[in-house]
Amino acid sequence: MTEHHRPPAGAEPDSGLLSPVRAGTPVEAAVADRAWLQAMLDAEAALARAQAGLGTVPPAAAAAITRAARAELFDARELALACRETANPVVGLVQSLTRAVAAEDPAAAEYVHRGSTSQDILDTGAMLVAARALALIRADLGRTARALAALAAEHRDTVLAGRTLALHAVPTTFGLKAAGWRQLVLDADRRLGAVLADGLPVALGGAAGTLAGYLEYARLDGPDPEVDAGAYLDRLLDAFAAETGLARPVLPWHALRTPMADLAAALAFTAGALGKIAVDVQSLTRTEVGEVVEPAVTGRGASSAMPHKRNPVLATLLRSAALQVPVLAAGLTQCLVTEDERSGGAWHAEWLLLRECLRLAGGAAHTSVELAEGLLVRPERMRANLELTGGQLVSERIAARLAPGLGKAVARQLLTEVSLTADREGRTLAEVLAERAELAGHFTAKEIAELCDPAGYTGAAGALVDRALRP
Amino acid sequence: MTEHHRPPAGAEPDSGLLSPVRAGTPVEAAVADRAWLQAMLDAEAALARAQAGLGTVPPAAAAAITRAARAELFDARELALACRETANPVVGLVQSLTRAVAAEDPAAAEYVHRGSTSQDILDTGAMLVAARALALIRADLGRTARALAALAAEHRDTVLAGRTLALHAVPTTFGLKAAGWRQLVLDADRRLGAVLADGLPVALGGAAGTLAGYLEYARLDGPDPEVDAGAYLDRLLDAFAAETGLARPVLPWHALRTPMADLAAALAFTAGALGKIAVDVQSLTRTEVGEVVEPAVTGRGASSAMPHKRNPVLATLLRSAALQVPVLAAGLTQCLVTEDERSGGAWHAEWLLLRECLRLAGGAAHTSVELAEGLLVRPERMRANLELTGGQLVSERIAARLAPGLGKAVARQLLTEVSLTADREGRTLAEVLAERAELAGHFTAKEIAELCDPAGYTGAAGALVDRALRP
Amino acid sequence: MTEHHRPPAGAEPDSGLLSPVRAGTPVEAAVADRAWLQAMLDAEAALARAQAGLGTVPPAAAAAITRAARAELFDARELALACRETANPVVGLVQSLTRAVAAEDPAAAEYVHRGSTSQDILDTGAMLVAARALALIRADLGRTARALAALAAEHRDTVLAGRTLALHAVPTTFGLKAAGWRQLVLDADRRLGAVLADGLPVALGGAAGTLAGYLEYARLDGPDPEVDAGAYLDRLLDAFAAETGLARPVLPWHALRTPMADLAAALAFTAGALGKIAVDVQSLTRTEVGEVVEPAVTGRGASSAMPHKRNPVLATLLRSAALQVPVLAAGLTQCLVTEDERSGGAWHAEWLLLRECLRLAGGAAHTSVELAEGLLVRPERMRANLELTGGQLVSERIAARLAPGLGKAVARQLLTEVSLTADREGRTLAEVLAERAELAGHFTAKEIAELCDPAGYTGAAGALVDRALRP
Amino acid sequence: MTEHHRPPAGAEPDSGLLSPVRAGTPVEAAVADRAWLQAMLDAEAALARAQAGLGTVPPAAAAAITRAARAELFDARELALACRETANPVVGLVQSLTRAVAAEDPAAAEYVHRGSTSQDILDTGAMLVAARALALIRADLGRTARALAALAAEHRDTVLAGRTLALHAVPTTFGLKAAGWRQLVLDADRRLGAVLADGLPVALGGAAGTLAGYLEYARLDGPDPEVDAGAYLDRLLDAFAAETGLARPVLPWHALRTPMADLAAALAFTAGALGKIAVDVQSLTRTEVGEVVEPAVTGRGASSAMPHKRNPVLATLLRSAALQVPVLAAGLTQCLVTEDERSGGAWHAEWLLLRECLRLAGGAAHTSVELAEGLLVRPERMRANLELTGGQLVSERIAARLAPGLGKAVARQLLTEVSLTADREGRTLAEVLAERAELAGHFTAKEIAELCDPAGYTGAAGALVDRALRP
Repeated sequence: MTEHHRPPAGAEPDSGLLSPVRAGTPVEAAVADRAWLQAMLDAEAALARAQAGLGTVPPAAAAAITRAARAELFDARELALACRETANPVVGLVQSLTRAVAAEDPAAAEYVHRGSTSQDILDTGAMLVAARALALIRADLGRTARALAALAAEHRDTVLAGRTLALHAVPTTFGLKAAGWRQLVLDADRRLGAVLADGLPVALGGAAGTLAGYLEYARLDGPDPEVDAGAYLDRLLDAFAAETGLARPVLPWHALRTPMADLAAALAFTAGALGKIAVDVQSLTRTEVGEVVEPAVTGRGASSAMPHKRNPVLATLLRSAALQVPVLAAGLTQCLVTEDERSGGAWHAEWLLLRECLRLAGGAAHTSVELAEGLLVRPERMRANLELTGGQLVSERIAARLAPGLGKAVARQLLTEVSLTADREGRTLAEVLAERAELAGHFTAKEIAELCDPAGYTGAAGALVDRALRP
Repeated sequence: MTEHHRPPAGAEPDSGLLSPVRAGTPVEAAVADRAWLQAMLDAEAALARAQAGLGTVPPAAAAAITRAARAELFDARELALACRETANPVVGLVQSLTRAVAAEDPAAAEYVHRGSTSQDILDTGAMLVAARALALIRADLGRTARALAALAAEHRDTVLAGRTLALHAVPTTFGLKAAGWRQLVLDADRRLGAVLADGLPVALGGAAGTLAGYLEYARLDGPDPEVDAGAYLDRLLDAFAAETGLARPVLPWHALRTPMADLAAALAFTAGALGKIAVDVQSLTRTEVGEVVEPAVTGRGASSAMPHKRNPVLATLLRSAALQVPVLAAGLTQCLVTEDERSGGAWHAEWLLLRECLRLAGGAAHTSVELAEGLLVRPERMRANLELTGGQLVSERIAARLAPGLGKAVARQLLTEVSLTADREGRTLAEVLAERAELAGHFTAKEIAELCDPAGYTGAAGALVDRALRP
Repeated sequence: MTEHHRPPAGAEPDSGLLSPVRAGTPVEAAVADRAWLQAMLDAEAALARAQAGLGTVPPAAAAAITRAARAELFDARELALACRETANPVVGLVQSLTRAVAAEDPAAAEYVHRGSTSQDILDTGAMLVAARALALIRADLGRTARALAALAAEHRDTVLAGRTLALHAVPTTFGLKAAGWRQLVLDADRRLGAVLADGLPVALGGAAGTLAGYLEYARLDGPDPEVDAGAYLDRLLDAFAAETGLARPVLPWHALRTPMADLAAALAFTAGALGKIAVDVQSLTRTEVGEVVEPAVTGRGASSAMPHKRNPVLATLLRSAALQVPVLAAGLTQCLVTEDERSGGAWHAEWLLLRECLRLAGGAAHTSVELAEGLLVRPERMRANLELTGGQLVSERIAARLAPGLGKAVARQLLTEVSLTADREGRTLAEVLAERAELAGHFTAKEIAELCDPAGYTGAAGALVDRALRP
Repeated sequence: MTEHHRPPAGAEPDSGLLSPVRAGTPVEAAVADRAWLQAMLDAEAALARAQAGLGTVPPAAAAAITRAARAELFDARELALACRETANPVVGLVQSLTRAVAAEDPAAAEYVHRGSTSQDILDTGAMLVAARALALIRADLGRTARALAALAAEHRDTVLAGRTLALHAVPTTFGLKAAGWRQLVLDADRRLGAVLADGLPVALGGAAGTLAGYLEYARLDGPDPEVDAGAYLDRLLDAFAAETGLARPVLPWHALRTPMADLAAALAFTAGALGKIAVDVQSLTRTEVGEVVEPAVTGRGASSAMPHKRNPVLATLLRSAALQVPVLAAGLTQCLVTEDERSGGAWHAEWLLLRECLRLAGGAAHTSVELAEGLLVRPERMRANLELTGGQLVSERIAARLAPGLGKAVARQLLTEVSLTADREGRTLAEVLAERAELAGHFTAKEIAELCDPAGYTGAAGALVDRALRP
């Protein structure tokens, strides 16, 4: 087997070359290997300080551990390679941290990872990473929502064709469309906010979720060898939560993966919601439609082959994330099915999936800011497109107006005929309608023309925008 | 193309043959084709009554529509076949309903589906189906949680091996395990409850989400031809919500699919949470482990080949659902990415996925009641298994006790050696430890034996159970 | 727990109301509960006949079993409800079949399911169902491919805008597009064909995959109590394969789920490939584009609200399947991870997923025939749309032509400027180019006009169509 | 928007910290950003050489481009950040490559990316990366299969309990189990091999798949300004395929994503197949079972808390991959649904998913070599476990033997009673059976004991192993 083991190679860069939606965005750094490493070290240091606060670890040891818990002192690649022997990075990290602490304060080294287990550190670290990433994502969603609110207000009464199953249906307004996009962004933000408000929890259970190791050391090291288990667990959990800024869970969650599933759901929602905006922007950007244009930035949207194109790059990036996050999130959700006190595999499958969900959703949120703040709207193209069907997209209205006189079925039939005639002859609905004998005496040509004006048939669109934007 | 069309064949039965987890459970009937049909009819009737309440539909017409809106009057198969021409079942349903109303009250027939659109009816119907199914699921989760609470309380101090990565780790208690299962069930129930509390919304937008058709008819049919759009939408939405018992959404959600994504997330969580219980039960049921047995029911668990087996059937059913719902839910979540005012395909992909998620999660919830209420626990097998490793699962504790005297690294090294020796020689850890010179003067043989008793090393398990069960 | 058990209710109809893509299509009946039941009965009968051929079951018994193995004699609902006690439908089916045989020939009843296990029957039945469904699907794909070949040939030189990232890029031909669609359909057909050619296998392993039960009975019942295990397994497998028309596997595959994963992959591919055609049809159908129209059938595409619409219903149905099958197939693929000789859950999760994959992909294949055979192509709209950008979609060509004289970078820069000018001033590229001093002496106005003709810049599109259609 | 853009930050390392299954394995480097960059550069160089071979690019230019096409000359991070303006890395890469070539040979710079489009380069690069990774994966699968063949041969007759639904069923052999594992590995290898044999194709279509740009330049730059489109496309495709070592596709596949779906399916299968081995190893490793032990390597399997544990680390890593790849692969398969000549998003979503599928499946394949080559089998524990149920796992056999005398139903009933008695009284089946009056005269106590020996009831297990291992 010897030839099978190769000398440890250096880590390759994670440049984002294959994932432009997040390349260079703030969330990328916040979830990088280095950030995870730091978060796990933060967990070790917070644990030591929490124990020190309870008198079971010397304050000087906690201080030494805190000083040594800096990611730049550790070699992530070496830890990653060591993972293959233990299936998780904490075993190696604890050894390295112990050495680092010992170099400065040998007595303090005894107190590294005191009573703890790998999963407490990795899970607490994961929650720190997630909490930091969520804050970035929410900030970007907030900016996007504000920009969309401005778009919705500005275009409250800008009429365009409502489209269903790819075809013009009835008129709507761009304000209502933008208000809908904003609503989805707010929905995403609320779901992420609820995950944070419910409290991303510290992990503190020890080897099998009983805290036995922590208690054993508390009795050995602390002031009271008879310390009550319940009292100590309350104090230790509260202290650890306070030191990390995370929440206190009801039970150790080594095998109760609710926080992971909640993150998965909220991040899949976020990416999906932004993906809806993206496909709408793409639909309106089509050459034949041309109703919106992505913000112009020098070089943005350039094609390697076609000088004239200005590709909707931001929508493309958003959609690429929306196609990935929901399946990644499903993988994460499935890890709920985790046997015993710690699964051999289901836990280990979560890490990459969680990071990728955070990174793609976060990259998408960042990208959506640029899209929402810079989107160019072309009301004149919207108006021109409304006229493409010769007024057919108010046929629902005409049918309604004719029904009282003609009966619903007859009115529908008439409309269908008139629509086909108008279509075949390239004339407007108003023109063809004005010729129909059935309408004589019911409507003047002027009334017919008014009825056929799409701008007169936007229903409650304006009122809906007002309600949606109401503070 | 004629030969390609075959005469409509009758509907096959959906017996549940391929889905035993839900066969015969209450949720099955609640989400069957008939139930969806009734829910869509309920939506039509509620809409007519809401409009009648606002004076835009004659009360007698609303009453006639309500009387005709009974699923047993309609042929689901015929409607399903008609779907292929329109891509949704509402077009055909409206025609059938109109005929049924006209047969009784021709004037009333004009008011069927007044101003409405297929999606308003189908989405409102889907929310009614979901709300009814969620109530059933929550009732079952409540029973399961209560049964698990009783198990946790009864076995607060029943010691068994904590297992991580398939191996004995340190002791824990069955009470803590059952309390963890209950916590997941409560988490599932809270997530489903939150979806209901946020309010599954009525769908009311008309052809493209502007309510233009509703307004047009309100002006034609109602007392005030100049009715204010905002005032009318507020009143109509409130009335429709009141008639259906559903919530009022901020905006029409034809293309803003938050309710579907929320249901998907909560149902995936529910199935996954119950799946965790299932794999734990399977792990403890293994022939070599034998620590729990599924409830004995005559005929339950019988094998077609092996007379001696009593298969863990309920856990099997739960796990089968847990393997399916998360991927189905991912499909549903992806439908967030829906273009324009109504997608040609993304909307249509939701129906089957939602029904299957409800049905599988609901079947699992029902199955979990039987499992939790009848699970047999065998403390004697737990105790016997604890002794399998000769006390090695308290090695963490011994390491902690030795560390102050020997240093952490030396203590770990000693324990590793002693463990290997005990393992090799088939002796208990206590015996081998008692022979080690390093311990002389530190511990008596009696102290060593006490230290090695698994029952003495359950940490805060009891206190955790108390906290979890605290009302 | 008594009140928890309800009297068995009748099966609800599976009308297809929520799944129009398959309602009434041939594959629907081929995978219905009744068809599965028949396939499992076919497996029992084939097994008895195979054993009879080897002299270990009396021929009369095999004949009696075959006569009784008719689905209409059994109550699928009753079997489904019984599943909840055994987790699979075969235990109950064997009891019912035994009773049915005994009623006619008591001695024969002893030979029902002789030496067998539930999984042998269910898996063999599943392969029979899959083989029958695949034959239907392939027939439909064949028709679709032929229709697309005709479209490709007819429109070999019909020019339309090639579109990338939602924008006009360079010209292409509709023939090339249709040839691409056909290629995907052929790819799907080949993948399904390969699954059939590799051989969907019989399942024959007995309780744990050793065939011990079959051998035991062979020695008891057959002519040679010392029959060689290897010789008997060869003969029994060959006979069972011959009786069912399925293939002989290398090993019993109770826990080696390659056939399921292969089906999942080929069906996901099929649905995805047809989904590509669907989104292209939708893209070309858009009101502003109007380059294709779905086949007109009376009533097809009608909207409940808008009389003028003719919705692209077939594409909508295809896309709805494409959004569902890949995630369902992922669930099926995951069931590869199945522990021991038979999993408690992973096996049971496959059935519904497989049926749904077959049914949705099969419904989509059937739907694609109608779409491909009836699609209306509008070359005049294609031509009109090509002119929308004033010739900019040949800018790549102009850049190429200018590069030799001006250098690549300068040529690109010039084109970008000219494109912007043309766009801003609403003029054609040819007009603006003709005014540029840089081109004086290089090209005449006529040459420029020719260069700007999209029809002259379709590259090898025609030749590609020829090659793709080559027999 | 200015403050929203941050200065380009350096790329973070991709250390593998969160993905130990692939950290340090050969496939990791083969699919890293640097490898993708090199593969895209290889595609550019191969294209130039192919064009040079056809006389449309000067040989010296092709040579200069080839010399400059070395990944170490380019900054992946800079290219990644530039991606955000163009949505793909090729636009920036072409600019950088052009500069690098120009620095050496200004005239050659004109010929970089001649007539090409981003997707031709990225897709060809992706296929090169995939082909290289697949070769590594297949080599590892080959080693694993050989090691498993050796295990199967060595343990052809090693008896252990066959387990179904978590319980002992009937005996089987470890040889048959290992032969099954090997079969899955061979199945995976064949599927990957078939993808390679079908030919991972070059991508060569130009801007919209017509090769128009290539032809335009061929006419401008080459010896024959009237070159026939068909002839040139044949020659160019053949030459490009020859230069890259990839296959020639029937049609440009910018929007026909069969190769991606094929890779997804084969990689999901590979990870799932190895996951099956993993869960079996975990099942047999359980403390109570102890029938196999993972290979011992110093430090391997160490726990941060429990000195005595030797965790099944390799199985854990394999299972972590099996939980991830199928959902990632589903995401890739869904990208079949890609609109127009190039999708804005579906193409872009593929890259990360493909890389991750390759990397995780490849890491798993590498890990499986260590597991298969080093797995320790403990026949004595298998034998001991067989005796746990007092011989009940031959109850199927006893039932068969009793049936001729007693009838099948009576025999089953007797066995059920005897099993329960044996279980309740802690005696063996043989003992209890020997006391039953029904058997007097049928079997002697010695015959009963022989019948109850699990080693005598392994059916055709040995013969199956022989057949599976047959060359």
